[in-house]
Amino acid sequence: MDQENSVDHDDDMHDIENEGLLYGKEIERYWSEFSGKNMSYAEPLLVKRRNTTSQIAIIGANVCPIESLDYEVIENELFKQDWRSRKKIQIFQYVVLKWAFALLIGLGTGLVGFFNNIVVENISGYKLLLTTDLISKHKYFKAFSAYAGCNVGLAAAAAALCAFIAPAAAGSGIPEVKAYLNGVDAYSILAPSTLFVKIFGSILGVSAGFVVGKEGPMVHTGACIASLLGQGGSRKYHLTWTWLRYFNNDRDRRDMITCGAAAGVAAAFRAPVGGVLFALEEAASWWRSALLWRTFFTTAVVALVLRGFIQYCTSGTCGLFGQGGLIMYDVSAAEVTYSFADLLAAIVLGAIGGILGSIYNYLVDKVLRAYSVVNEKGAFFKILLVIAISLLTSCCSYGLPWFVKCIPCPTDLHVSCPAVGKSGNYKPFQCQPGYYNDLASLFLNTNDDAIRNLLSTSTKREFHIATLFVFFAAVYCLGIVTYGIAIPSGLFIPVILAGACYGRLVGRLFESISKLDTGLFALLGAASFLGGTMRMTVSLCVILLELTNDLLLLPLVMLVLLVSKTVADNFNKGIYDQILKIKGLPYLEAHAEPYMSNLVARDVVSGPLITFSGIEKIGNIIHALKTTGHNGFPVIDEPPFSEAPELCGLVLRQGSGKGIKLEDLDIEVEEMDMYIDLHPITNAASYAVVETMSLAKAAILFRQLGLRHMCVVPKGQGRHPIVGILTRHDFMPEHILGLHPHIKPHK
Amino acid sequence: MDQENSVDHDDDMHDIENEGLLYGKEIERYWSEFSGKNMSYAEPLLVKRRNTTSQIAIIGANVCPIESLDYEVIENELFKQDWRSRKKIQIFQYVVLKWAFALLIGLGTGLVGFFNNIVVENISGYKLLLTTDLISKHKYFKAFSAYAGCNVGLAAAAAALCAFIAPAAAGSGIPEVKAYLNGVDAYSILAPSTLFVKIFGSILGVSAGFVVGKEGPMVHTGACIASLLGQGGSRKYHLTWTWLRYFNNDRDRRDMITCGAAAGVAAAFRAPVGGVLFALEEAASWWRSALLWRTFFTTAVVALVLRGFIQYCTSGTCGLFGQGGLIMYDVSAAEVTYSFADLLAAIVLGAIGGILGSIYNYLVDKVLRAYSVVNEKGAFFKILLVIAISLLTSCCSYGLPWFVKCIPCPTDLHVSCPAVGKSGNYKPFQCQPGYYNDLASLFLNTNDDAIRNLLSTSTKREFHIATLFVFFAAVYCLGIVTYGIAIPSGLFIPVILAGACYGRLVGRLFESISKLDTGLFALLGAASFLGGTMRMTVSLCVILLELTNDLLLLPLVMLVLLVSKTVADNFNKGIYDQILKIKGLPYLEAHAEPYMSNLVARDVVSGPLITFSGIEKIGNIIHALKTTGHNGFPVIDEPPFSEAPELCGLVLRQGSGKGIKLEDLDIEVEEMDMYIDLHPITNAASYAVVETMSLAKAAILFRQLGLRHMCVVPKGQGRHPIVGILTRHDFMPEHILGLHPHIKPHK
Repeated sequence: MDQENSVDHDDDMHDIENEGLLYGKEIERYWSEFSGKNMSYAEPLLVKRRNTTSQIAIIGANVCPIESLDYEVIENELFKQDWRSRKKIQIFQYVVLKWAFALLIGLGTGLVGFFNNIVVENISGYKLLLTTDLISKHKYFKAFSAYAGCNVGLAAAAAALCAFIAPAAAGSGIPEVKAYLNGVDAYSILAPSTLFVKIFGSILGVSAGFVVGKEGPMVHTGACIASLLGQGGSRKYHLTWTWLRYFNNDRDRRDMITCGAAAGVAAAFRAPVGGVLFALEEAASWWRSALLWRTFFTTAVVALVLRGFIQYCTSGTCGLFGQGGLIMYDVSAAEVTYSFADLLAAIVLGAIGGILGSIYNYLVDKVLRAYSVVNEKGAFFKILLVIAISLLTSCCSYGLPWFVKCIPCPTDLHVSCPAVGKSGNYKPFQCQPGYYNDLASLFLNTNDDAIRNLLSTSTKREFHIATLFVFFAAVYCLGIVTYGIAIPSGLFIPVILAGACYGRLVGRLFESISKLDTGLFALLGAASFLGGTMRMTVSLCVILLELTNDLLLLPLVMLVLLVSKTVADNFNKGIYDQILKIKGLPYLEAHAEPYMSNLVARDVVSGPLITFSGIEKIGNIIHALKTTGHNGFPVIDEPPFSEAPELCGLVLRQGSGKGIKLEDLDIEVEEMDMYIDLHPITNAASYAVVETMSLAKAAILFRQLGLRHMCVVPKGQGRHPIVGILTRHDFMPEHILGLHPHIKPHK
Repeated sequence: MDQENSVDHDDDMHDIENEGLLYGKEIERYWSEFSGKNMSYAEPLLVKRRNTTSQIAIIGANVCPIESLDYEVIENELFKQDWRSRKKIQIFQYVVLKWAFALLIGLGTGLVGFFNNIVVENISGYKLLLTTDLISKHKYFKAFSAYAGCNVGLAAAAAALCAFIAPAAAGSGIPEVKAYLNGVDAYSILAPSTLFVKIFGSILGVSAGFVVGKEGPMVHTGACIASLLGQGGSRKYHLTWTWLRYFNNDRDRRDMITCGAAAGVAAAFRAPVGGVLFALEEAASWWRSALLWRTFFTTAVVALVLRGFIQYCTSGTCGLFGQGGLIMYDVSAAEVTYSFADLLAAIVLGAIGGILGSIYNYLVDKVLRAYSVVNEKGAFFKILLVIAISLLTSCCSYGLPWFVKCIPCPTDLHVSCPAVGKSGNYKPFQCQPGYYNDLASLFLNTNDDAIRNLLSTSTKREFHIATLFVFFAAVYCLGIVTYGIAIPSGLFIPVILAGACYGRLVGRLFESISKLDTGLFALLGAASFLGGTMRMTVSLCVILLELTNDLLLLPLVMLVLLVSKTVADNFNKGIYDQILKIKGLPYLEAHAEPYMSNLVARDVVSGPLITFSGIEKIGNIIHALKTTGHNGFPVIDEPPFSEAPELCGLVLRQGSGKGIKLEDLDIEVEEMDMYIDLHPITNAASYAVVETMSLAKAAILFRQLGLRHMCVVPKGQGRHPIVGILTRHDFMPEHILGLHPHIKPHK
């Protein structure tokens, strides 16, 4: 089949539902290989969700590798396809469509972001109003029942969605997006069902009062929207728009999903520049400056959409969604001047924040592994776990405020004290008029409002030190035990909440030596926790700036982030990397491990190599496809077709992404003995290294160019023209150290 | 010689003065090859500054390739050198030193940035005070003489520095830094003399009232400081610190220079995040996230240093340096609400700004080519040209304000009108008391103050439309004719100045339909010009945000930048890319040209290939080194040392960066017949491609991995084991189109 024609034909052969199946199988193969060898600590969670569709498909249907991130073939295609240079109108269409898609992703993510906020604010607003109303009537037990009941109901709904419809929607989603952009396409991670559950599960989960955020889910949502648009809808749900199906190569899809991730951050934090930087620093594995440009456009659209809706809502037409909606913390009231003592305080705060952040990572890791045992047992147990955590959260939120004393309202306020309505700094709770309960002001609020209260400036003595300490301990622990249950749960908000509380606590302790406002200390505390857990720098810094709209704080925020990240890096890896490892996703690092330089490419080639001849018997091909899980087969020209055996190129297993199975093929017995010419579908320009090439250099080549298969050719002459094929798994530390147990990886 | 030992030994063998010599020669070779073939439009300017040192050196002194950006060898070295894994203390030292250097670069650049600002403010302040003083005494001719005399004197001093000490310091410096980070090491571009002239030339040039900025020179200064630190001082000037000489590989040096460039932007605009993004978007060709992290640290240090000095200066101890020092435009007074009409106005403004920006680029290109004819004639003509332009600028600045009418001072002001002192919005010039001259308020100020006046908010009718038009035309033309003369001259300020004036003009024209403040329009105008000339997006956006400290404008600024860049991209390339091309620097683009996919690697291999045997006669080596300009030679193992001829690896010409010449070697005649074993100094793991590999894929491999040499090996067996070597020049469009004239490059 002609390569050029395939471009026009196979547009309607993709189905998002099936994407990545192939890869899912590979992950299993990979883990089954090592699970025996003292790898119990790395037992993957994702593997459990095995897919039942057959992996086996046909060779030669077409050369469009939609189900893998095989950039080598794409580039080949991109350059070989003269249709683009021949038909100018198509180039124009292509460029315009790229931008149109960026626009659509921005619009879609912006809309979802706004929808999420407005619904969450309304649901949790009414819940809190009901509770405070009952409390003000001294019906304390009834209030608790209503509060906990609402929470459990919402939580159970979220868990049911997750458990029955899309298990892949649980958790943050950022590690999965990161893995996807690295080339690992885990099962149904960007499917429409995942998108649906991510949106509604996140709304329900956040409304249920869990210590979870909507930021990670929003990033995942943005990526799902981008994927859905890029595929032109979903075939499974009979929602397909042929005119949308334009991007049939992986590079374009990867670009769109990068835009989607950036749009997600932009929508979550109203931080367009922060979104771009997040995509660049944390999400993307490969980056081009053309992408910077398009990502930036997408986030600008998100910002404009959100701005438009917020302006629309200022007239009060959005129910309880008001100023408290999209998080935006204003610390500009505080004067930012700092002395050397403040710098010192910031360094100490950053260092301790880094240590607390790395402990957070460590504990999340342990809890995740413990929960995986429960979650494996089935949907019922998943929901039970969610309900248990929901009850725990409700008890903490409602119970702990009883233990603090009521505080008389300060007299010099221009806000009402005690507060009326759903938000506000000074919650009355059980106190008599003129008094407020400072712990209830933090617990009986949405997480966004609690953060706003913690970051509020010029309210130095609003919270008692003991209150801050209790809230910090509670939120820190609740955040840890909440991540891992079967609801979409972002990590940003728990970390910011705990960090802001920690910062405010430090501010209170340092108030004799530092002139900085406690609200600014809270911001620095949040920065230190974010740096200590997520280990991003520039993007976090910009996100915090865009949240607080005060650039004068920048040097201090930078300093804190630097210190906390540096300190935390000494203990463990960032939280997203940890989750990637737990999930068993074979993430390819940008750098080679030091011990790789002592090995050569030949040293890690494993398994029997199956090759095809340039003119191969169909029976042999079918047999090879049936009996192996390989995806790439070297094609060798042998005498009499060439003088000596010669490597012709690589042919890929194709078609599984389109739902075509090998069993579906109707091949007669006599056809099995016929021959097929593989040359037209062979990628003759596959990258190759000599067997004596340093493994470290081979790994860098593999990673930098985003390859999926790399041929290893012999050094000397007169030998079989191929030594083996290296794939992603061959570069995984577990594989290499398994083959060479004498190597000690350096810490 | 042992590779491992070389790390410790060759530290004291580098000399910055000689770096890049080798490359300079290569550039010449490259251009001489094509200059005959209808390439007159691409006549390079840089080639004229030929160096006279011999290029020829020895093989085998050591394997440290400091004079090239040969990342392939570095990586090999980095991984092979077990010293790092063996001696833990050295790893620690290495990491700590990296951060210490980032700190030093930040401190150094911050200091220079502050020094630059304080000196410029004082010199031009006294100049302007003298002029206005004479004007107020009605000594108009004397005032002009004083003004023009100061300007010419300062300009001539700047030009003399440039012409006699460091011609490489003329111009912006950003294209050269960009080229360096791409792997092109032009002659003496980061030398200490260049640093010296860049600092003082920039101070003199800006003080002389030229329409030039200090931003580009600051970026170059930062890069020079980083280079100087990385080299441990300069041997030529007997300023060497052995303890500083730790980084003897190109990747570390490249990283440091990236940090330096970012620090330069941070110092110029007080924009730390903008600096990081500039380095990422515009300067760097290769990027790692570890670098993001370190660059960020450097710019944070710069921000802290500047902040410290500014706080010190608020007490009035810095002469005329006051609020007007480091540019920081406060537009926060204006309320930012915008409607659909404003968005429309922004789009129109962006589109026209993009067109004007691309015309600016076109004219700068023409003027640069015209000036190169004058500049070639010698130092005297260079200085003459500078004086002529200085006189033209003085005449415009002093002459044009006479043609406008005096305007009565508004009554509702809280600043003094007419202004007293050196800066201020309402310059009296020749007007009677109570009146001001609006054109003089723009012309008889420093560029920074003129921008501040244009961006000032709530002063809608301060400038007449005619005044704005005259100033715009004058500044637009002066900016074009000033770039290219022999002084360090940044492009940011002229573009911002013209753009802000254009924006304010548009604001005045749109004032009936738009409610946006004219100051905000001026900001958007500046954004549109920046987008239209420099074609950056995210970094410009962030720099503008950090300059104005108002995040609410972000969506509008983004929109304008997007529109203007998109429009301008249809006409020509960004200004820095144009200058790169004019200078004849072989910049390697990140993408392959479309026609490359129709060629294979073999098609562009040219010239006779010179190979060495594994055990080679010394005479042959000396001969090859003397008669060719090649830098890499394949080493072939031949029978009887192997069964068949076999490619062993690549050996590099070494030593020229250390000032060791081939003539200096004392080799006896009988030694010429002796043999040397090249294996220990051969890079056995050099990257190679098969001759039938698509050229596009080979180009991407070459660029992505930052190679300098790539071996092309034959496909079949039984042939000579190497077909040729591809270098940077073989991937240049001029080379490929020269070899294959039938190919028509697509626009």
